[in-house]
Amino acid sequence: MKIDLNSDLGESFGPWQMGNDAAMLQLVNSANIACGGHASDPETMFQTLKTAADRGVHVGAHPGYNDREGFGRRVIPMQPAEIGRMVAAQIGALQAMARLVPVKVHYVKAHGALANLAAGNKEVALAIARTVHAIDPDLALLAISGTCLEEAGRELGLATYSEIFADRGYQSNGQLVPRGSDGAMIHDADAAAERLLDFLKTGLMPVVDGDPIPLKAQSICVHGDGPSAVAMAQQIRARLEAEGVAFAPFTAG
Amino acid sequence: MKIDLNSDLGESFGPWQMGNDAAMLQLVNSANIACGGHASDPETMFQTLKTAADRGVHVGAHPGYNDREGFGRRVIPMQPAEIGRMVAAQIGALQAMARLVPVKVHYVKAHGALANLAAGNKEVALAIARTVHAIDPDLALLAISGTCLEEAGRELGLATYSEIFADRGYQSNGQLVPRGSDGAMIHDADAAAERLLDFLKTGLMPVVDGDPIPLKAQSICVHGDGPSAVAMAQQIRARLEAEGVAFAPFTAG
Amino acid sequence: MKIDLNSDLGESFGPWQMGNDAAMLQLVNSANIACGGHASDPETMFQTLKTAADRGVHVGAHPGYNDREGFGRRVIPMQPAEIGRMVAAQIGALQAMARLVPVKVHYVKAHGALANLAAGNKEVALAIARTVHAIDPDLALLAISGTCLEEAGRELGLATYSEIFADRGYQSNGQLVPRGSDGAMIHDADAAAERLLDFLKTGLMPVVDGDPIPLKAQSICVHGDGPSAVAMAQQIRARLEAEGVAFAPFTAG
Amino acid sequence: MKIDLNSDLGESFGPWQMGNDAAMLQLVNSANIACGGHASDPETMFQTLKTAADRGVHVGAHPGYNDREGFGRRVIPMQPAEIGRMVAAQIGALQAMARLVPVKVHYVKAHGALANLAAGNKEVALAIARTVHAIDPDLALLAISGTCLEEAGRELGLATYSEIFADRGYQSNGQLVPRGSDGAMIHDADAAAERLLDFLKTGLMPVVDGDPIPLKAQSICVHGDGPSAVAMAQQIRARLEAEGVAFAPFTAG
Repeated sequence: MKIDLNSDLGESFGPWQMGNDAAMLQLVNSANIACGGHASDPETMFQTLKTAADRGVHVGAHPGYNDREGFGRRVIPMQPAEIGRMVAAQIGALQAMARLVPVKVHYVKAHGALANLAAGNKEVALAIARTVHAIDPDLALLAISGTCLEEAGRELGLATYSEIFADRGYQSNGQLVPRGSDGAMIHDADAAAERLLDFLKTGLMPVVDGDPIPLKAQSICVHGDGPSAVAMAQQIRARLEAEGVAFAPFTAG
Repeated sequence: MKIDLNSDLGESFGPWQMGNDAAMLQLVNSANIACGGHASDPETMFQTLKTAADRGVHVGAHPGYNDREGFGRRVIPMQPAEIGRMVAAQIGALQAMARLVPVKVHYVKAHGALANLAAGNKEVALAIARTVHAIDPDLALLAISGTCLEEAGRELGLATYSEIFADRGYQSNGQLVPRGSDGAMIHDADAAAERLLDFLKTGLMPVVDGDPIPLKAQSICVHGDGPSAVAMAQQIRARLEAEGVAFAPFTAG
Repeated sequence: MKIDLNSDLGESFGPWQMGNDAAMLQLVNSANIACGGHASDPETMFQTLKTAADRGVHVGAHPGYNDREGFGRRVIPMQPAEIGRMVAAQIGALQAMARLVPVKVHYVKAHGALANLAAGNKEVALAIARTVHAIDPDLALLAISGTCLEEAGRELGLATYSEIFADRGYQSNGQLVPRGSDGAMIHDADAAAERLLDFLKTGLMPVVDGDPIPLKAQSICVHGDGPSAVAMAQQIRARLEAEGVAFAPFTAG
Repeated sequence: MKIDLNSDLGESFGPWQMGNDAAMLQLVNSANIACGGHASDPETMFQTLKTAADRGVHVGAHPGYNDREGFGRRVIPMQPAEIGRMVAAQIGALQAMARLVPVKVHYVKAHGALANLAAGNKEVALAIARTVHAIDPDLALLAISGTCLEEAGRELGLATYSEIFADRGYQSNGQLVPRGSDGAMIHDADAAAERLLDFLKTGLMPVVDGDPIPLKAQSICVHGDGPSAVAMAQQIRARLEAEGVAFAPFTAG
């Protein structure tokens, strides 16, 4: 059993810190690094890339809506082509910064409201996938398991990988339990670890409203911010390692 | 006699237009395209790059201070390394956008207060040149003739080119007459064209306070905004062509 | 017959000009002045307020979404209470600037996507009206004729006035013909003036899909930007004045 | 012996928290609340004002450079009149938000690089003081003890108060020991409290390079961010109260 842990990092801005990136970069295999859209700035990008490189963590660009005040969690009405261009500017910014370190940018993962939109909207998914392909066809795409963005990545011929969430409940239709509903969040690290172990052994994910469903995933997303983020990631990793799960980046090289 | 005409373009932002880029892109050989720092946004970058590509105009990244309100004309106190990283993010954004078109980004030219600072401050000049080199050692650098940035570019081994200004007066120390002083601006297109012809024939630039001085330049910068920008560029180009001057991009390929 | 002409002004930003405010301020009675949300900055606010004061034009705060890139024309998902607070900050900014001139801020008019949302959404309309009332119950509200915002203003006890658009087509349900549909825009100044004269004489507004409908309005909105804005405003004003219409601010004092 | 404790609060932004405002608002008498320039947004302003009002803390507007990335700690080149207008927009935004709570804005205190510039530059100091006076001549001004801003406030007839810093070292010329030099910061709460007690008893402030100097102050500034901010404020307050010092807002009403 082999899996990747990924987390959204580099989400500080100017004087404001978010999360404990130094600790998380000891725990994850892949770091989704904000690109100056929903969060970050040149200094934050550079320092996060450098720390990730020092620790051998693979890095991905993590573009989102250009909306720091809303942290990329609000859908800003835009045409798919505009989204593709917004995403291009952000990926490019992170890539150039990565050359200063230097470190390779392995993949792209969309953030927040943009990721949610691209999960269910094929046109938006294709706009993102086309941008990634145009920038560099060797970039991988990390998408939420079972979404339009996954399909779009594969149609474009991108190396496309899937993630599941360590602490979010699933429904039998494969979608997440909406935040605010019962079972949306798993707050207990042991419960989260057991669920992940079951999934890794069986390929089946327990759901809140029926029998476990088949899901495919090469990576587990753990949260990087919030007071208990580091502790939960540590406990999940320790529990899975104790069961013989090996952790390695989903991307090669 | 052969020379390049360059202009700062792509400096619109959201709903706000600046200059007449469509007309200027009929006249210049090289377009310095704003990267979202002092001006521009993803849509403006993309459209300007596309129009430039359609017309065979070579494009360069035109990074400046992240200060739209001040249009990059105010020095924001930053360490040289911070400047290098700010510039990296902007160049990368434009490069990625250029791949969507697709069109090649040939060179980098600093904007406004950043260009002025890099002209006289070797540390800042080196920070910019190192960033350009780290992103892609094949990127050229376009610097104001006779400045620290030119020196820094050459020290780093970048293909470094120099520009003179079509409508700015020079002093015998090689620097521009400060804006607001007598002779700072040449408003008459005929006078500007005659001065440029003299320079192209002799390599000597007339100055406001003494004998003409030797300057080297592979490019002439014409302004892209202001009500008379297009007319002045047209007249200069027509006058020089009538005297047998050939116009071509300073960068090859 | 007496009416007010209003226009959205002060929508420049930093180095970028929008429209010809100096000319428009010779023509209108009331100026809706952007407050740094969808457009403007402290310098633009101050200069626009000062010119308006010099010409005896009444000024109103013109708040919109904090979205310069989208010029306030995109709905940013926000709770009504958040909208109320966003609007408060903008009105306050303009009021303080007005005290520097000094000039009185007479009224508030919402901009773009925010105005459209408040037209049909009573909760948003009430959030805006409550903010205006809390800031100063003597502020007037200028709303699109026949909308929720009008209702909300009256419920809160604000002096509430209504506007019609000089160059937009109406439907028999009282709403504007959507942009992009036939009859959405009236491009001919004579046709616009004749329609307004008919309305002023009869209180009935011609519509694209039936008999004229009764509308109430104390003000006519003319556009301040676009190449023909000044000419259209001039022609409309001249034609109406020739028919004996008197122009005066809809707000007193 | 009676004194005020003030702190810079409301400096969160969007998803990013700064400091522990809830705890600090239990300790201070006066809260300098960021106005959307160097920090804050409408939600943060409103919530901070509301919490301050609930606890009976007097509030002041805390304007700074419009530079979130630099947190208002960088001097942005601007004319004094431009500074006056930038400050006006920020004070106005906070005032309008305060009317939503409702709570009275008692005073204005400049932030960071703007406060430092206004301390030594009389023109800038006068620009700020004139803005405050134009907005409302009953607003008080809180300035660093012994500065141009104090002078300017008094010349304009504003109620002008002075502050000293709980944890910053002083020089015999009355200025702070620059950050980074020996003695710039007092990290020990006991030492800070003893120094303040000495000052309150004698009116003399110990300095790093000579005999104590006379200073006047109606308020002590304690930091609101950083891991030990709350603890230091608590210890200073407890120690001074134990010695019979009474704490109350410097502004009346």
